[in-house]
Amino acid sequence: MYTIGLIRVLTMRDEEKINLHGKMIEKAFNELKVISKCIEDQPLGIYDEISEEVAKPKILKLIKEFEAMNVDAVVVSCAADPAVEEARRTSKIPVIGAGSATASIALSYGERIGVLKLTEEVPRVMKRILGRHLVAEEKPEGVKNPVDLMQESGIKASIKALEKLLEAEVDVIIPGCTGFSTINFIDIVRKISNKLFIDPVLASGSVALGILKQLNKRGEIK
Amino acid sequence: MYTIGLIRVLTMRDEEKINLHGKMIEKAFNELKVISKCIEDQPLGIYDEISEEVAKPKILKLIKEFEAMNVDAVVVSCAADPAVEEARRTSKIPVIGAGSATASIALSYGERIGVLKLTEEVPRVMKRILGRHLVAEEKPEGVKNPVDLMQESGIKASIKALEKLLEAEVDVIIPGCTGFSTINFIDIVRKISNKLFIDPVLASGSVALGILKQLNKRGEIK
Repeated sequence: MYTIGLIRVLTMRDEEKINLHGKMIEKAFNELKVISKCIEDQPLGIYDEISEEVAKPKILKLIKEFEAMNVDAVVVSCAADPAVEEARRTSKIPVIGAGSATASIALSYGERIGVLKLTEEVPRVMKRILGRHLVAEEKPEGVKNPVDLMQESGIKASIKALEKLLEAEVDVIIPGCTGFSTINFIDIVRKISNKLFIDPVLASGSVALGILKQLNKRGEIK
Repeated sequence: MYTIGLIRVLTMRDEEKINLHGKMIEKAFNELKVISKCIEDQPLGIYDEISEEVAKPKILKLIKEFEAMNVDAVVVSCAADPAVEEARRTSKIPVIGAGSATASIALSYGERIGVLKLTEEVPRVMKRILGRHLVAEEKPEGVKNPVDLMQESGIKASIKALEKLLEAEVDVIIPGCTGFSTINFIDIVRKISNKLFIDPVLASGSVALGILKQLNKRGEIK
């Protein structure tokens, strides 16, 4: 059994909502137990470069708190991998970013990857990892942040954007925001298409488990 | 519970040796059951472009056999991903190549990746996925194929090559051959360095599990 510290980059008060991503991981991977924390004062989350920069020190602080709690790994549940590069420089435990985990899993399944973006830009970390395998990108009209995505109109716009991506003959579609995990968009995609759509929270869980299995330190059954 | 069909690209008669990679995956991931098969007439495995081309139709035949057996996914346990691209075009189940799985997992952990090659060239699929993240490569002197690697001299030469790679300030080291899994090289690395070294067979298992969790079809407890 391994314990994962998971960081939500959206400020919430409701424990059930804070724990949603962690519960998804626990349900899928029976060796992982997840403790979740969310950053303060960002009720709209991370949705552009400024909101990402503001969030970084808060994320680094939470990673330190998780390290002090002796978790086995940390997952930053955001497709932009905010503060992940910085944290890896000092952290003694694996720090997994949802963006790099999702892009990586996509590359182990196919060559032509399409990104369903939340905003104008595909997260930089995804662009960097996908390189020339990023062959198409679309964004849902009228959606500006993860909160917009949770509305009925946001879901409808996302389905339209997905349909455009499917026309591009991609092997895999990945979302550019973990908000798509929050609305369980993978279940909608499964009804529309048999193309692989990668849920970034599940991807983070599988990568965390995969990395932990490579390390010397073995999780003990508790 | 999911069933994985695993293809060994080295011809062997000893069931225990054939099943070695599969047992590693089963030991690490309690949701995976592995059935192994090996290709015929290649006692030295795949170690260059010609031996890869000769192996491809044999691998595609085994993938078809596995599909007829209703496995949930196939793992081609070779870092060159032989026949993986071809198989994905027609296969209805996920086909995971050890090369792409290993390179992908590396990218979800760090930016500077070093490859411990078996032969002169880094497998093409690894080069393609790593892109500019491939920052160093070394090969063990005097090793020409996976069988050389299993000798005492092959292991010594691999340790020397590893030490050179560690000088290149890489974040992660990945081997360019699943022969390094066969000799359990990860345990040797763990004694020498605390850098992450990715075992390609374990990487294949974690990626297979991660992809299966994304699919609609749920594995049932048998």
